[in-house]
Order: sequence, then C-alpha cells, then structure tokens
Amino acid sequence: MGDNDESEIIEHHDDEEMEKMRTPRNHSQSFLESVASSKDGYSSTQSSHRLLAYSDALISIIATVMILPVAHTKFQDNEELKQSLQALLTTKIAVYLMTFLIVTVAWAAHIRLFQVIERIDDTLALLNLACMMLITFLPYTFSLMATFPNNTLGILLFCACVMVIGLIQALIVLYGFSHPFLLNDQIQMSENQAYYKRRILEIIMRVPIMCLFASVFSVILIQVSYIVLAIVIFLPYISQCLKWIGSKAIGGQVEDSPDSVPFYTYHPSEPLSKERVEAFSDGVYAIVATLLILDICEDNVPDPSVVKKEFDNSLVAALQENGPEYLAYFGSFATVGLLWFVHHSLFLHVTKATRLMGLFNTFSLAFVGGLPLAYQLTHEFPRGSHNELEAVQISCVIIFFAGLFQLAMWVTALFTERETLHPYVRYGGREHAFMLAKLSLYPCVALGTFVFTCVLSRFSTSIFHMMEIGVPFAFLVLRLLVRVALVLLRWLFCPARNDLDSVPVEEGDSHLPINDIVT
Amino acid sequence: MGDNDESEIIEHHDDEEMEKMRTPRNHSQSFLESVASSKDGYSSTQSSHRLLAYSDALISIIATVMILPVAHTKFQDNEELKQSLQALLTTKIAVYLMTFLIVTVAWAAHIRLFQVIERIDDTLALLNLACMMLITFLPYTFSLMATFPNNTLGILLFCACVMVIGLIQALIVLYGFSHPFLLNDQIQMSENQAYYKRRILEIIMRVPIMCLFASVFSVILIQVSYIVLAIVIFLPYISQCLKWIGSKAIGGQVEDSPDSVPFYTYHPSEPLSKERVEAFSDGVYAIVATLLILDICEDNVPDPSVVKKEFDNSLVAALQENGPEYLAYFGSFATVGLLWFVHHSLFLHVTKATRLMGLFNTFSLAFVGGLPLAYQLTHEFPRGSHNELEAVQISCVIIFFAGLFQLAMWVTALFTERETLHPYVRYGGREHAFMLAKLSLYPCVALGTFVFTCVLSRFSTSIFHMMEIGVPFAFLVLRLLVRVALVLLRWLFCPARNDLDSVPVEEGDSHLPINDIVT
Repeated sequence: MGDNDESEIIEHHDDEEMEKMRTPRNHSQSFLESVASSKDGYSSTQSSHRLLAYSDALISIIATVMILPVAHTKFQDNEELKQSLQALLTTKIAVYLMTFLIVTVAWAAHIRLFQVIERIDDTLALLNLACMMLITFLPYTFSLMATFPNNTLGILLFCACVMVIGLIQALIVLYGFSHPFLLNDQIQMSENQAYYKRRILEIIMRVPIMCLFASVFSVILIQVSYIVLAIVIFLPYISQCLKWIGSKAIGGQVEDSPDSVPFYTYHPSEPLSKERVEAFSDGVYAIVATLLILDICEDNVPDPSVVKKEFDNSLVAALQENGPEYLAYFGSFATVGLLWFVHHSLFLHVTKATRLMGLFNTFSLAFVGGLPLAYQLTHEFPRGSHNELEAVQISCVIIFFAGLFQLAMWVTALFTERETLHPYVRYGGREHAFMLAKLSLYPCVALGTFVFTCVLSRFSTSIFHMMEIGVPFAFLVLRLLVRVALVLLRWLFCPARNDLDSVPVEEGDSHLPINDIVT
Repeated sequence: MGDNDESEIIEHHDDEEMEKMRTPRNHSQSFLESVASSKDGYSSTQSSHRLLAYSDALISIIATVMILPVAHTKFQDNEELKQSLQALLTTKIAVYLMTFLIVTVAWAAHIRLFQVIERIDDTLALLNLACMMLITFLPYTFSLMATFPNNTLGILLFCACVMVIGLIQALIVLYGFSHPFLLNDQIQMSENQAYYKRRILEIIMRVPIMCLFASVFSVILIQVSYIVLAIVIFLPYISQCLKWIGSKAIGGQVEDSPDSVPFYTYHPSEPLSKERVEAFSDGVYAIVATLLILDICEDNVPDPSVVKKEFDNSLVAALQENGPEYLAYFGSFATVGLLWFVHHSLFLHVTKATRLMGLFNTFSLAFVGGLPLAYQLTHEFPRGSHNELEAVQISCVIIFFAGLFQLAMWVTALFTERETLHPYVRYGGREHAFMLAKLSLYPCVALGTFVFTCVLSRFSTSIFHMMEIGVPFAFLVLRLLVRVALVLLRWLFCPARNDLDSVPVEEGDSHLPINDIVT
C-alpha cells in the first residue's frame, strides 16, 4: 500500500462529488439533509495511514519495555559478572526476548488485519485504540506469568487479554465487511466476500478459542496450558515450516488453491506492508537509542546539597563520577544510529517486504534492544578487570548478531530479487557491492573486535573505543573504500571469468562475485 | 511535500536510465566504470522521508523525557498536596515545560532545514544522525543549568551543544548547495542560489554566534548570558509579533520583498511540513500513553519472596496493592488515545500546517505530557481526602488546556481556511459541526467535571471515574448526537435567517452558526 493518504482522501471526496453530480439532487440543499442522506458512516471514511503509524509507535515502545528491568539490574563489582549474568539470563533476558516475540506476533496480526481493511472510519479508529490498550498490557501479564509460573492468575490475565484482543479484531472484521467500501480493493471487487469473511474470522478466532482452552486447563493442570499457549503462538510458523520441508522432500510444488485468501496465508513470501515494517523498526531504534539518556536525565543530575557536601561545590568533579555513563550513551547512540542507517539504506532498495524478512528484522531488533545495556556494562567496571573484558565481548556478540540478521534480510530478498529488490541493488547491480559492504561492515568489525579482545585481552577497552570512534568514519568513506577494493580486485583477478549466472552472494565470499561482472 | 518516496526513487532511477539512453554509452560497460563515471554521489540520492520520520521519533521521545523526574517524585500523603506541588511547580515542572519548548524549537529548525534540502544521500544521513545525538543531549544540559543556575558549567555545555548543532546544520546546508540536486526544486530552479545560500547560512549561524557570546559572558556575568540565551530562542517570535502589531497599528500591509527566501521567514503563516507535525505528535502521544505502563512493568511485578512472606502466597492480594496504578494506566491511556484521535481527525482535514498551528500544537502536547502524572495522582490518595480533590481538579485543568489548544489550532486554520482546510470541513461545510463537536467535547467535559467536583466535592472521584468511562462512548455516538442536536436546533430556530457570510466560529457560540446554513 502506498502512503498517498492525501490523494486518497481527495479521491474519496471526488467520488462523493461525482455521486452528487450523478444523482439529480438540489445542490442548495441544507447541510443537515446532506449529512442525513449520505450513506451511513461513508462520509467519514479515512485513509488508515496515520492510525497505523500511531499503532506502530505504541507497539514498538511496548516491545522494548521489558529491557528496562534488565537494564536497571545493578551489578556488584566484587562479584563475578558471569554469575550475575547467569542469574539474569535465566529470567529477565528470557522474559525480554519472549515479550518481544509475543508483541511482534501481535503486531504481525495487526498488519494482516489492516491489509484486509484499508480504510477506516471513526468507529474503527476507536476500536483499534481499545485493541492497542490491551496489547500494551500484554508485557505486564507476561512478566507476571514468568515471575509466578505456578500461579494461575498470570496465565488467566494473559489469556483474558488475548481473548479480548481477538474479539475486538473479529468485531473490526465484521464491521469492515458490513461496510465493504472500507475493505481492500481486491476483496471489495471479489464475488465471494462471504467466503473471505468466514475464512478470516476462522483464523482470527482460532487464537482466542485456544486461549480459552488454555485458561480452562490452567485450573486443572498448569503445564498443559503452557503447552497450549506455545502451540497457539508458533503453530502457523511450525505448520508452514513442515509444509515447506514436505514440499522440498517430495519435490512437488504445493500450490494454494486459487480462491484462497490472499492474506492470512502465513507463507514465508506473504507480503508484509513495507511501510509498517519501517515504522515499527524506526520506533524500536528510536526508543533504544534514547534508553540511556532517559536514565541519565532522570538519575544523573546531582543534588545541589550533595555537590556542596561531598565534592566541595565542584560540579565538574561531581559529574566526573558519572563520566562512564556519558561515554556509554554516546557509544550506544552512535551504534544504534548506524545500525538504523544500514537498515534505512537496505529498505530504500527493498520494494516489497515478506514475512521471512520481517522475522529476521524482528530478531535483529531484539538484539539491538540489548545494546544499551551491554554498552553501559563496558564502562561500569574498573579498567582491565575480567568483568570488563566479558562486557566488551558481549557487546561485540550483540552487534554481530544484530548486523548478521540485517544481512540475512538482504540475502532473503536476493532469493526473490525480482519481486523484492530494486534493479539497482540486485545481484550484479550498480549498488550491489556497496550495499553488501554496508551490511557486512558491522558484523565484520564486531567479529574482528571480538577476536582482538581475545588475543590482546589487556587492551580490550582501548580496542573497543577505537572501534566505536572508527566505525562512523568508516561509513563516511565506505563508498570510496568499496571503489578501491573493486579496483584492487579487478587488478588482481584481471579479465578472466565472465559467468554472470552464479548463486546469490553469501556472507563469506564478500567481494568476489562482484568481480564476475567486472569485464 | 508529499510522501511519495517510493515513486521518487523510481523517478530518480528513471532519470538515470534516461540519461544513459541519451548519452551514447556502451550499455554493456563494466559495473565499476558506471559507478566511477556517474556524477559523484548522485547515484545514492534518496528521499528524505524515513530519515525525517526517525528524527521525529527521536525528538518526540526527548521532548517528553523531563516529565520522568516529575512523575517519579514521591508524594507523602500526610503532607498537603499543595505544598509538595508548590515545590514541584517551581523546579521540575518548569524544567519540563522549558525543555519541551527548547526541543520543539530545535525541531522547528530541523523542519526548516529539511524543507530546503529535500533529498539526502549517505553523508547527509550521517551528519543528521550526529545532529540528533546532540539534540538528545540538550535536555540533560538544560536540567544541569536549571539545577545549578549559578554554575557556569551547565550554560557552557548547553552553549557548546547548540553551537555544534548549528555548525553541523551549516555543514548540511553547504553540502546541499554544493550538490544542487539535493535541494528543494524551487531553489534548484532559481537563479540566485548564491543569495539563498548566504541568507540561510546567516540565519542558521545567528544562533551559534549568539551562544558564543552567551558562553563568553557566562564567565564574566552569568545573568547576562541567560538574557542572551532567552533572546536567541525567542527573537524570531518576538520580532514577528512586533512586526505584526506594527502592521496592524499602522494599517499598511508589510509585504516581504519578492526575492526573499521562501523558508526561514518565521512568519506565522509560513508552511510547516504537515507530515512532520503529524509524526512528531504521534511520537509524543505514543510515549505519553505508555509512560505509566513502563513504570508498571518495571516496578509493579511483585517479588515472589515478598508475596510468600507478606501476602500469604496470594498473588491477587499482592496485586491489589497496586490496584490504583492499573486504573490510572487505563484511564490515562484512554484519555491520551482519545486526544490523539481528535488530533488525527483534525489533521485529516488540514491540507497545510502553519507555524502558528504548530505553536498551538506544541502547547497542547506539552499539556498532554503531564496527563499520566495527574492521573496517577488521582488514584494515589485515600478516597475523599482534600489531596484527591485537588488531583482530580488538576487533571481536569490539564485535559481542558490540552483540548483547548487543539480547538485553537482549528480556529487558526479557519482564519485561512482556503489554504489550510479541506472544503468539507470549512466554515459551513458538511463536517464542520461534527469536527467542532469532536474538538470541544474534551474541553467541555473537563470544564463540567471541574465545576461538578467544586460543587459536589464529596463525590469528586466518582464523577471523575464516570467521566473516564463515559467519554469513549460519547465519541462513539458523537455523530448521532451531533445530528440530533442539529435537528433540535433546526426545530427551535426554524427557517428564519439566511445570512451565510458571518465570521468564523469561536468556541462560545458552538452550534449556532450551523443554524445559519440550515435553510
């Protein structure tokens, strides 16, 4: 869906104008009558663009919310980082990752719903807000569930939320089908609307019904209800996976029946609104980039009385106490900002986002969420300690995976490049090498830093700081570097091969395939 | 500026394609050569849409960040709310409001800059990220300044940030003018680019130079530097105001010279990118709506050991402790969501945003930022206490002003309705009455609740709760209510007057003017 909301409204108004012209009505009719005579609700039809942007902003904030309890865990320095991390890993980080996943599942359901319903009116906007209110409450119920796994209250609350969300979504679908001008054009034109309606409702209601079972089971045997919940969330993915493996094993192509719904297929190449993937990612990157400054603004303005007493009225001395925090802030902002920059460059060249790309995007974002925490740790311990080394290495691992999943998105897009990529960045295109360099810069640098810190563990912080300072400049001169590398490659491998039909580029053979198209 | 980034890129690619066709080049030329021969940087030109969306998200988070220290101030219940509020009002709330204002000033400067530079490339994207990093640091330097007004460090840091931001913006302008295809089409076509460049640079550099003076003065006499800073921030507004008053007093129309820059005029009707006003508002509404759930997720998951010890293993009893917090969350989410809904409805009908509308929008958003705090207070005190009454009344006042400034935006738009509004919502248009009802619902309800709580102070909470529950339903049936009201009005005032050329609607005479056009 293009975001030409402006023109859509005008178009819509034009339609109404046309309608007026056609019907032999008195043009000087009263305002009241014209309101009353217009088709009920039709006069207030709106493009859904901004509603979805607002929903994306809300969901992205909520997805990253469970990183806060992780970030605010205080580490004792005399204790080994490993032990405290182990305690963290088992609970809070797991809760964060699971919440992120669950919220993105809800977000994906929301995308699917509003790919069917393309225009909204006031009633739908209000229903959507009610739905959002419950989605923002999901992380809390989930963390209750995680903290008290043997208590039925958490699971009951979670199920209740999911059920009400499902019911509201069903209501939205029913309302949409009773006002067909709100629907996707494809469905609006179709003759078997009733079939679509039944099928979509079936899929939407599957989740609340399963949750009803889970909540009933929770009273009898709580383990069963957890299994039911896990099945609810991952069923579409598992079934798709099995179907795909099956089709590969047998060799036959399993085609969907032609009259099946174009949405709600859960197929890996099902289109996902590119605009919404971008909006959601922007939200997550923005929140994560500012997580540390939120803390700094709240906690690190020293108290005047403390400055007077402890620091002899020297504000500079008082602020130096928090020195590492500022460094951590600038470091994490720069890294998150640059990862956003890479994401932005990638999506400039993507013409259509698919479900699989969305999944990789989610994984990448989940890692990005942990970055500020890792950066904060790198500056919190005394220099040269074992803890510091581990913190630096964890940061490297997080950056590596965040970058790697971005690269995975591109590789996925390359597999279906005709539909998903701009010609200029397709395999062998003009921007291909540059895009690859952009995407692989962070994983390579992170890997390099990790290896260096293993070898030269005494200088781990210095290496890390140099990486932080160097990478932004590397991005600035990247175009130049790529050109130099290509010239070097051409010079090395001279005009020899000329086979253009090799497989898409994988991460390992970074610059080689480019050489193929160099005459 | 329409947000057709997709088509812009395609268009751009098409241009390149055309260029290739025209120049008699070998099409099978090497990838390397084509990169090298293309105009430097031109091949990577991008639409700035997403960069601006990300910047808006970052700035909206940062604008609301100083509400957190306010929100986390703990009130002692035995103390009078009035006293603790007075302490709060003098410092934290003032800091919040001033930060909000300063950040929105930086945001407005950012809008102006990117109305001149409409396309970006990688270098500009990276420069913009650096600029953003410094903008997000502004609230902290400002709160240092507010906490230690007599220390030069705060003011020096603030000035340093502003100066570097100014320098980066100047760099962006210089880069833009040296790559003219990045510029606004109007400037790109114009013959006196050099004049535009000089003029824009002059305006941008004014702020850093003044800040340099302020920082020099801060060493000598700190009061002078505060005055200089205040002048820096408000000078454009004051000079515009004086000019306007002057022109009204003399009667002569002060026209700008025809060759003046179309941007950077600081005129109240200067266009402000509607898209960016929406994105910024969405960000603020989203953050504010989730402020309370952030707190709840972080602090209100009870510790298993505490539940075991204090609540006899009853999770329900432990959660009941936090009952008021949940109520406050749902209440504030609903109110913020509905205020967003009104804003969204308004901007659907706005075709062009002006600076004055932007200013009212900022005021409205600043009040919205305080809402979660007020709601939290209403539920924190024992029922029927004097504190509770005051908290309820403060909430009403905040809602009233947030709604009132939204209404002010519409009234401002009505004054220049031919340029700023859709025909359907203009004075006397089909949606006019409905829009007015939507915009005036919250101010009216808040005023009503305030008056009721003054009269029936014993039932203040019940009245407030009923308001919370009733308003969403009022929005649902608003269209019906407006129709009934109009029918009643028609019935009361019957076909009598027929003068269509009266002044635009003000708040007081809510439904009367509609009657004018009822035949």
